[in-house]
Amino acid sequence: MSFIPGHTLPAENRQVLLTRRPAGTPAAADFTIQTAPLASPQPGQFLVRNLYLSADPAQRGWASNPALTPLGTPMRALAVAVVVESREYGISAGDVVYGFFGWQDYALATRADLFSHIAAPRAPISLYAGVLGMPGVTAWLALLDLAPPRPGDAVLVSTAAGAVGSIVGQIARHRGAYTVGLTGNNDKVTQCTTRFGYNAVLNYKTADLPQALAALRPDGFQIFFDNTGGPILDAAIRAMARHGRIVQCGTAATASWNPPPLGLRPEREIMSRALTWSGFMIFDHHARFSETIEQLTDMLLQHGLEHDEDIETGIDAAPGALSALFTGANTGKKLVFIG
Amino acid sequence: MSFIPGHTLPAENRQVLLTRRPAGTPAAADFTIQTAPLASPQPGQFLVRNLYLSADPAQRGWASNPALTPLGTPMRALAVAVVVESREYGISAGDVVYGFFGWQDYALATRADLFSHIAAPRAPISLYAGVLGMPGVTAWLALLDLAPPRPGDAVLVSTAAGAVGSIVGQIARHRGAYTVGLTGNNDKVTQCTTRFGYNAVLNYKTADLPQALAALRPDGFQIFFDNTGGPILDAAIRAMARHGRIVQCGTAATASWNPPPLGLRPEREIMSRALTWSGFMIFDHHARFSETIEQLTDMLLQHGLEHDEDIETGIDAAPGALSALFTGANTGKKLVFIG
Repeated sequence: MSFIPGHTLPAENRQVLLTRRPAGTPAAADFTIQTAPLASPQPGQFLVRNLYLSADPAQRGWASNPALTPLGTPMRALAVAVVVESREYGISAGDVVYGFFGWQDYALATRADLFSHIAAPRAPISLYAGVLGMPGVTAWLALLDLAPPRPGDAVLVSTAAGAVGSIVGQIARHRGAYTVGLTGNNDKVTQCTTRFGYNAVLNYKTADLPQALAALRPDGFQIFFDNTGGPILDAAIRAMARHGRIVQCGTAATASWNPPPLGLRPEREIMSRALTWSGFMIFDHHARFSETIEQLTDMLLQHGLEHDEDIETGIDAAPGALSALFTGANTGKKLVFIG
Repeated sequence: MSFIPGHTLPAENRQVLLTRRPAGTPAAADFTIQTAPLASPQPGQFLVRNLYLSADPAQRGWASNPALTPLGTPMRALAVAVVVESREYGISAGDVVYGFFGWQDYALATRADLFSHIAAPRAPISLYAGVLGMPGVTAWLALLDLAPPRPGDAVLVSTAAGAVGSIVGQIARHRGAYTVGLTGNNDKVTQCTTRFGYNAVLNYKTADLPQALAALRPDGFQIFFDNTGGPILDAAIRAMARHGRIVQCGTAATASWNPPPLGLRPEREIMSRALTWSGFMIFDHHARFSETIEQLTDMLLQHGLEHDEDIETGIDAAPGALSALFTGANTGKKLVFIG
């Protein structure tokens, strides 16, 4: 057992519970903040003090799934935390960890809850929830496994300024691709060109997408990295070059899949353009997280990897931080600091 | 120059011209049968006598495309023919050829029109338009390039008794897969099990597809080879196993793509099941036709490759033969013998 000497545990643990099943995008009224008694780790467990709670688009799905977030339990969430007491071999008090610790001050965790165990941080620890966390690892593996860009390829990215999209755009540009970002407001358009190095950017809310995409790239796009689905996808499929590749990494444009909404049928585009459209789920790739985080850290330290953090303070801010992801109100990786 | 001694050329050439742009599926009234003077081959050309005109689903697209079939010209079509006179190096009178010779008795052709040049036929020549022609080569390359079945994989095939589907089912079964066919009438259901060796068959017109697919394969399908698109595709995507592969080889269910019809949005299934959906276009693979025809011929001669031919006689039958493909009235590869 290890513990942090001098760390005084409070008697109670503040938690943000999911108390109502959301209809589509979670709202503040779906959550209740309360305190609960704090338990001690059993063998195989460790107790963490959360520092940065993460708000991620995937939480919309987790909130709608009773198996992932039972009502009355802390909202399922990733967080960057420090271990305060450990009864698990190889995990020590003082270690920085990132994993499924939920929206609460303290969590009892096991190895199964870990995304990464950062034994020797090489960057500010909040980054391990963003550019060096699930969003960064997702961007790296989804792009480079499913649609590795070649120099000169045209790569279209939706949610281009988002936590995943902004990294996809930079990796693609770094590999010599011509990158086009799609985003939903003019501040983000500016950010895409000045920060994330896109060659061109379109505001999908104001542009005539089919026309604008054709004007930017008359011969079509070799790669579309999609985090939204919906009408953006309908337009992008029709702007693909033959033998192009589509990566489906998110479906942020659709709030509810029950029943599934209708869209333009894609099968003829898939066939006649001989496209390959692949889905990506980060948790299929556990075994490669550590190695990928090191590769991302190398890129960050050696070549630079622009990233934004949009950090709020106080556990009360968590529900609103999540809702903001779906209105496009966030600018960069959304975190709630509660340390 | 080579020519067939004793072959008497007629003065005129019967042709089936496309004289009206079809609205969706071509109908008899879109065509006009007439005769035209017969020309002699110039250097680089050869004159062929068509024997078997082929009716293929792809002709619906060719008929709707003015660049592929200008009004007033013979309907674009594949045919098996014999060379009667040649001014092209390496192609001799008497050779069997299969290519884009159109709906007519005679055609002046060049190498660019050839699908295959069968110097030494090892099977009845009509088969070079079917199981050893475009449908067979399509089945082989699309399945084995994009979704090679492993033993025990569940492989779902639409148009399971069709010219492409019936071969896909047999190749998959030969490789140890569990094959399920989808077809549209009970005669074809019988044919699928008795002739093409499917492990199970569903009539998509009468079955409750989501329920029936789940009952047949509760853990989902590893591969869906789709020739139809449309509602069958909507159901099949939702019956896929994680990491499954979909091959889009045809879109027979949709008569017109202008405007594209609506369907259930697939992007969430693609993502959450981590599917890979690939389109296949046979004419991307020219360089491999000869080799693939030999592999198919080996399989036919060594292991058997069940196939049906549905042969009508007389050039007048061509328009009706094409329409029949889209009502499901054909049984096997549809040909019109005009020799």
